[in-house]
Amino acid sequence: MSKRNKQRNGKSRQKGPDLPSNVLRVTPLGGLGEVGKNMMFVEYETPNSLDSIIIDAGIMFPENDMLGIDYIIPDFGYIMDRLDTIRGVIITHGHEDHTGAITHIMESVKAPIYATPLTRGLLEVKLKRAHLLDDITLMTVQAGDTIRMGPFQVELFHVCHSVPDAVGLGITTPVGLIVHSGDFKFDHTPVDNWPPDFAKLAEFAGRGVLALFGDSTNATTPGWTASETVVDDAFDAVFRRARGRIIVATFASLISRIQQVANAAIKHGRKMAIVGTTMVDNVKMARQMGYLHIPDTMLVDLNEALHMKPKDVVIMSTGSQGEPSAVLGRLATGQYRQLEIQQGDTVVLSSHPIPGNEEMVHRIINRLIHRGADVIYDPIAPVHVSGHAAQEELKLLINLLRPQFFVPIHGELRHLQMHGRIASSLGVPEDNIAVIENGTILTFTPDSMTIGERVPGGYVFVDGAGVGDVGPAVMRDRDMLGRDGFVIVSLTLDHDTHELIEEPEIISRGFVYMPEADDLIRGAQNAITTVLNRDVALPLNDLRGRVEGALEKYFYSETRRRPMVFGIVHEVVR
Amino acid sequence: MSKRNKQRNGKSRQKGPDLPSNVLRVTPLGGLGEVGKNMMFVEYETPNSLDSIIIDAGIMFPENDMLGIDYIIPDFGYIMDRLDTIRGVIITHGHEDHTGAITHIMESVKAPIYATPLTRGLLEVKLKRAHLLDDITLMTVQAGDTIRMGPFQVELFHVCHSVPDAVGLGITTPVGLIVHSGDFKFDHTPVDNWPPDFAKLAEFAGRGVLALFGDSTNATTPGWTASETVVDDAFDAVFRRARGRIIVATFASLISRIQQVANAAIKHGRKMAIVGTTMVDNVKMARQMGYLHIPDTMLVDLNEALHMKPKDVVIMSTGSQGEPSAVLGRLATGQYRQLEIQQGDTVVLSSHPIPGNEEMVHRIINRLIHRGADVIYDPIAPVHVSGHAAQEELKLLINLLRPQFFVPIHGELRHLQMHGRIASSLGVPEDNIAVIENGTILTFTPDSMTIGERVPGGYVFVDGAGVGDVGPAVMRDRDMLGRDGFVIVSLTLDHDTHELIEEPEIISRGFVYMPEADDLIRGAQNAITTVLNRDVALPLNDLRGRVEGALEKYFYSETRRRPMVFGIVHEVVR
Repeated sequence: MSKRNKQRNGKSRQKGPDLPSNVLRVTPLGGLGEVGKNMMFVEYETPNSLDSIIIDAGIMFPENDMLGIDYIIPDFGYIMDRLDTIRGVIITHGHEDHTGAITHIMESVKAPIYATPLTRGLLEVKLKRAHLLDDITLMTVQAGDTIRMGPFQVELFHVCHSVPDAVGLGITTPVGLIVHSGDFKFDHTPVDNWPPDFAKLAEFAGRGVLALFGDSTNATTPGWTASETVVDDAFDAVFRRARGRIIVATFASLISRIQQVANAAIKHGRKMAIVGTTMVDNVKMARQMGYLHIPDTMLVDLNEALHMKPKDVVIMSTGSQGEPSAVLGRLATGQYRQLEIQQGDTVVLSSHPIPGNEEMVHRIINRLIHRGADVIYDPIAPVHVSGHAAQEELKLLINLLRPQFFVPIHGELRHLQMHGRIASSLGVPEDNIAVIENGTILTFTPDSMTIGERVPGGYVFVDGAGVGDVGPAVMRDRDMLGRDGFVIVSLTLDHDTHELIEEPEIISRGFVYMPEADDLIRGAQNAITTVLNRDVALPLNDLRGRVEGALEKYFYSETRRRPMVFGIVHEVVR
Repeated sequence: MSKRNKQRNGKSRQKGPDLPSNVLRVTPLGGLGEVGKNMMFVEYETPNSLDSIIIDAGIMFPENDMLGIDYIIPDFGYIMDRLDTIRGVIITHGHEDHTGAITHIMESVKAPIYATPLTRGLLEVKLKRAHLLDDITLMTVQAGDTIRMGPFQVELFHVCHSVPDAVGLGITTPVGLIVHSGDFKFDHTPVDNWPPDFAKLAEFAGRGVLALFGDSTNATTPGWTASETVVDDAFDAVFRRARGRIIVATFASLISRIQQVANAAIKHGRKMAIVGTTMVDNVKMARQMGYLHIPDTMLVDLNEALHMKPKDVVIMSTGSQGEPSAVLGRLATGQYRQLEIQQGDTVVLSSHPIPGNEEMVHRIINRLIHRGADVIYDPIAPVHVSGHAAQEELKLLINLLRPQFFVPIHGELRHLQMHGRIASSLGVPEDNIAVIENGTILTFTPDSMTIGERVPGGYVFVDGAGVGDVGPAVMRDRDMLGRDGFVIVSLTLDHDTHELIEEPEIISRGFVYMPEADDLIRGAQNAITTVLNRDVALPLNDLRGRVEGALEKYFYSETRRRPMVFGIVHEVVR
């Protein structure tokens, strides 16, 4: 951390004998540093006991230069060392960045999971696919409920977010009350007509809040995040104007958005078709549980929809993040078997690009336009609003709760820092604000907060079936291979004389276009021959090294590229 | 293109005998489709003559999935077939996306380059590095000048942009007057106090404009782009507040921004150090030519700066796009030898991320914060404004010129489409608007515009010393290698029996971490043995194919990854 924090740390840390024996420790996990995502470990320690709870278990999407990585999970090492202390796992809402790692931790954690009904439904879909559902206790709780877990008493309070049934947490511990905001915004007119629980926040304030852990995702956004009703109006306008089919793409877990599209469809007399496995599953579950209100008569399957008049149909799909393999991505390249974009279609991208996805999203928009679609996206029209609180809302939360200590969570370091500044501007003393990177242990007593060391370990790459086996060395190789490819040269040498017996065989991919690289290959063979003639007396391994070195040099001088070069040598006894 | 355009095309195309014998052809080049950048080819043809000019020669930065590519240039095939018709090359301003390909075309084009003094200076730096300067005629022109080139009479008019000395073009042809906006915004209070040349635009309108080719970069941005004075105020605030060093990063060619930083430095009594080769060269040149007004006494070199009091210094550098190898990127990772970010430093990123760079820029911001810097970037403070016209300015230009035909240029298809809609909303008939992808030939007569075919060829990748040798096949391989790496298995078999003589040698990179993959490798060796035992009677080539297939299957079943697998077989006669 910055020097300022180090100083603060040094100043307020209480050493060995002075450290109170009963302390609360809170560690935001979810990967270290800039790729961290949402998870928290809360421990209460006395000389005789250690109890803990886990809040959320999110994944992070890989950045553009993390080649081949499917997703990233936190390093659970710290938790795995304390498995028998865990009293429960609480999931605040059903989005991937809070639930995506649940199967990874529940392979080891034996405590029950607590979640509101919709969140539970979304978790069940995941756990079932991982064949873990039978081994796990899932407890359904409601906003307003209190869960007792060892020394922790957790009160769930309703928050507005872009998925229904989201909660924040008031956690009463022997050291004091800490509040976890969850992902939230203060929407006075939410889709489900369930405004934020201001009363509970006021009640917390009355009891006195030791520390607030606040969602920082939009901390650099000035003002107040627009209400979901803005999106209603935008959809209304789109539906009013569209003459042909409407295709709306969003996240599969954005249940509120699906409801909004359904409302517009009802109003404008269109039937609705859902495409994409996860979205179909989620809609089914959310309707069964009463979180999505779509009459049976409204829904048609895609085949039916394709045989109806274009103006009578709205199709909902995934792929709003530009994923080439999702429905929208395949529509954009004409590779979706059942459905083809046609002149007169209106395509709505109802989500903002996750940072790093902008280019892919724009590419899909351009391709859809190229195919004749009218493409609507923010900022063309406000067909999406964020689910996260902007600066004025963040101020409101802090002022409502008046916490003694403040810890910004959820976001990159730049968001956390800005959130810290906001708290400071409201009068929270600088020393009572902890802008920390994930993995840093915070220790609380009833009147102190100490910034501790970071737990070992960083984030963990998930690639195919492998969890954590791909590390920096493999990533470096992928980067080099992706950039300049490789060349393999296979040499067959006489065992005694080291003479070349056959013409060297050269295999290369990703470096140059081999069918048109005859000159380059001939030059490479000459370079090999030169080395073999010169260094014939060297041991075989050294000879191979010389050949590799000569080829690297030759290829760079000819192409200014640096393919990986490998030599394979076979000796033949003649 | 969309069906609508095709219909329009079909409707208005005039076939063989009807086609007037004297026509103007305009072809926006600069790569096809979504990665296109800024270049235009203008031809006038009569039964006895063909004359042409080139406007701009830009490069495009590679997208995130274009692995290993340095930059992208247009396919010059169409131009190369018409080399002897070219009467001149005009460069509207000195930014990379308008000048970056100049060395590539000037290897073949023998006509002179026309540019304003600063643009010429920036071109000379490039041409010199490519050892082309001696072979080329560079003509200095000024806004207000008229250049006669064959049948074309080109009037340069001053426009405001984020580099001084930028111009738009009024090109009088035998068919009519066409106007090329250049990159522009309508800044009433620009840094160089040289407002847009409204009089010339009004004069063009009086003469009658056949077609306007308008900059669409910000066509999806509502309102009016803020003046550069906004940046002045933001810098003033930053300089007033900063207690330590200030480091400002921007593009090396953003000469106006460098002037603004210098102005703030003068006002607040700081000396200025410039770091980064290109920025140093550009500053030197722009000061010599009188485009940068920085007194000698203001400038110090970096070493001097580092020995001064932090509050007496501002350092200007490159790297605002997150480039890891530029100065700011190296500061963020602590790899800049002379300079280290310290607590109290204020770092200003004075540019917007180019689409696709957001993630890298944010990563650098986070790392700088981590090192203790106070990082200022838009939207934290308006330390950058765009150099391109937003929607209200685009409307103003169209209404000032009242063109008969309108062609949006510069931007992705989504920007061009929006710009077309803006023109349509102002009353330009739909049929007189050509939303076309780069490479499409437009043919003009005094009262018609016809959308023609696209010229063959797309964009060309530049990778190291190779121009155009890396195509789809190599890119596909790089993508696969970057994602899952490769495995090479080298087999030594008995010539007669096809028995394995040595243990198979397995080389792999980018797939799994080999030092910990013993089990996987053993399994692979078993899979090889199984195939060899079973298919021993097959010809050697088929046998190798079987081994590769078996390994691909085995690796996928074990890891859910798909490395490229290659077999190399050596036969040994025993």
